Amino acid sequence: MTNGAKGYGEILNGALAINEGKIAWLGEMSAIPEHQTELTIDGQGKWLTPGLVDCHTHIVFGGNRANEFEMRLQGKSYEEIAKAGGGIISTVKATRQASEETLLAGALKRAKALNKQGVTTIEIKSGYGLETETELKMLKVATQVGEHLPIDVQRTFLGAHALPPEYKDDSQGYIDLVCQEMMPKVKEHALADAVDVFCEGIAFDAEQTEQVFESAKSHGIPVKVHAEQLSNIGGTELAAKYLALSSDHIEYLDEAGVKAMAEANMVAVVLPGAFYFLRETQKPPIELLRKYNVPMAVASDANPGSSPINSLQLMLNMACTLFRLTPAEALAGVTCFGAQALGLSSTKGKLAIGMDADIAMWDIQQPAELCYQFGVNPLHQLFKRGELTG
Amino acid sequence: MTNGAKGYGEILNGALAINEGKIAWLGEMSAIPEHQTELTIDGQGKWLTPGLVDCHTHIVFGGNRANEFEMRLQGKSYEEIAKAGGGIISTVKATRQASEETLLAGALKRAKALNKQGVTTIEIKSGYGLETETELKMLKVATQVGEHLPIDVQRTFLGAHALPPEYKDDSQGYIDLVCQEMMPKVKEHALADAVDVFCEGIAFDAEQTEQVFESAKSHGIPVKVHAEQLSNIGGTELAAKYLALSSDHIEYLDEAGVKAMAEANMVAVVLPGAFYFLRETQKPPIELLRKYNVPMAVASDANPGSSPINSLQLMLNMACTLFRLTPAEALAGVTCFGAQALGLSSTKGKLAIGMDADIAMWDIQQPAELCYQFGVNPLHQLFKRGELTG
Ligand SMILES: [Zn+2]
Ligand SMILES: [Zn+2]
Repeated sequence: MTNGAKGYGEILNGALAINEGKIAWLGEMSAIPEHQTELTIDGQGKWLTPGLVDCHTHIVFGGNRANEFEMRLQGKSYEEIAKAGGGIISTVKATRQASEETLLAGALKRAKALNKQGVTTIEIKSGYGLETETELKMLKVATQVGEHLPIDVQRTFLGAHALPPEYKDDSQGYIDLVCQEMMPKVKEHALADAVDVFCEGIAFDAEQTEQVFESAKSHGIPVKVHAEQLSNIGGTELAAKYLALSSDHIEYLDEAGVKAMAEANMVAVVLPGAFYFLRETQKPPIELLRKYNVPMAVASDANPGSSPINSLQLMLNMACTLFRLTPAEALAGVTCFGAQALGLSSTKGKLAIGMDADIAMWDIQQPAELCYQFGVNPLHQLFKRGELTG
Repeated sequence: MTNGAKGYGEILNGALAINEGKIAWLGEMSAIPEHQTELTIDGQGKWLTPGLVDCHTHIVFGGNRANEFEMRLQGKSYEEIAKAGGGIISTVKATRQASEETLLAGALKRAKALNKQGVTTIEIKSGYGLETETELKMLKVATQVGEHLPIDVQRTFLGAHALPPEYKDDSQGYIDLVCQEMMPKVKEHALADAVDVFCEGIAFDAEQTEQVFESAKSHGIPVKVHAEQLSNIGGTELAAKYLALSSDHIEYLDEAGVKAMAEANMVAVVLPGAFYFLRETQKPPIELLRKYNVPMAVASDANPGSSPINSLQLMLNMACTLFRLTPAEALAGVTCFGAQALGLSSTKGKLAIGMDADIAMWDIQQPAELCYQFGVNPLHQLFKRGELTG
């Protein structure tokens, strides 16, 4: 994955050496330098890739929305579902009510499922608190996930995810709360590696998004954005002005937006799980992203409302099947470009000397198998900073 | 699942007793009769369902088609892909060349993955031999899968799956081979529980399908059909005349066909994995199937060409998401109606006294969770004929 989506950059009959949790050497077997090893593992023709990176998840939350899912399929009206407590606000209520322990137990289940699929780095967003205390609680739980599992967790503060019921008719009041109360506390307790905003007609407009970006900037935290998922209101171009790490979803992004991303060196995070689950028909502008050489990441968007699908391996298949990414593009999307979307390019997502030795060994004959088939888990072994963990 | 898709027929605070591999009693805890038990398991609020039934798979095959998948996504032309050996014929070649051991190893991996998801009964079709020897080899391997795993295997002879290269311009000659040479040997060695035909413009027409059904009938083997997947050429109505167990795919089935199914007491097997993977847009006539009370089964169609997706749990989600089945319909589709599609209604797919004690225990709070979310496997324990196997 050292040259991104332009092929796999594979080394056939290769060898790789690990020292102190980092990749110390790699190359062809025939070129192995003189060395001493404590332990040698014979891969027997299997493939190594970087440990996978899921760069966009919402796996800390309370409750689940199976009830709402069932009611919708039973033909119940939106009012009936709303009365029964559906929608994101039901998740907000359940998340506010849940203890840290309960939230952690749920998140650990989901993170473990990802880890068993070869994922060694995940991003987790807040955004189901929508009040200071619960937003901080979510970020603390996200931090704990990384302490309990051989997974690196990047935490993203997404206070501007939706409007809480308390601010129903006062979105500016809520944005003020995000910027003036939440952001300083998030910074003070060092609870976030990035700040995110849901910039959309049904969430926050470009002006409000910019206020949150300004606040993040003043606190020295990098930004990213949920944008152009359902319409184009300029979120991505705005994010480019703030040199955001990524813009995510982007089904409705136009050529000007793609250009802006290229110029700002942003990553386009495509989320086929939400596209599938919401039965969307507008696909992200893959051809334009290719034309302007915008790196594409692929992530699960695992969340209880629009993508209750906790599988990065399935996302590899969906990225190819639904968005027509090539397998090389999809794999780069869950390795080097997933890492770039998290600002981790220098340590994660590539097999190269000096990178963290987060490495997956796969029982496959060619890399495209990781995208083509689904269900039989081809993961053979998983190493985290050089330690065998699965 | 005792009343099919009309709700779950659940017993809350229930108990279930197993004796000699069969369900000996079930009902409310408060109604438990006087009894002695060797072993009591406290479900602690978890849910029991019948072990799942995947009633349509093609999991015995050689090779894989990752290469063709990748070439298509790279924009290669059909000629280039054909030249590189793509299409079903590549699977036929690989299956002919593979030893029984190799085929078994591949099929066991796939069957194990299904078993880990709560599947205790699967159907496996032949159809990648297209010559007598390999068709028999596939059915033998299918039989062996059931001997190696705690899974019941129903074997379906699908000699009429595609036209082999040897009969390129002589489809009638091939149908004669299926009926006059293969069928008698399949019967002689008791290798099939059903006979299937791919009745489609790109495969065999209704007249040829009827010849195979006649041959099956004369050998006393029940029939089923792949029909109306890409067009309507009357396969389902024909199958109804032969009182087929099921018609499978049926995206293009019309009202007359649905009526015929109802009158013949057939099961409609919907296959959302193939619909997804082939990016089809025409959905099966779910409303009509409901109107005429045709039971719907849901299956994986796991196969290397059109559904390389080996997950019945994912099919539950796809049946709801893509075909708008209710969770109760989808669950009935992988239990009681899956069993009916295999002629196993009297032993499988229901929790009722006298049925085989193939039982899954799920760590969920409501059954709809099995359909709504995917990725964290909620299977807690799995019993096969009363024995704990997973
Ligand atoms: Zn999201
Ligand atoms: Zn099939």
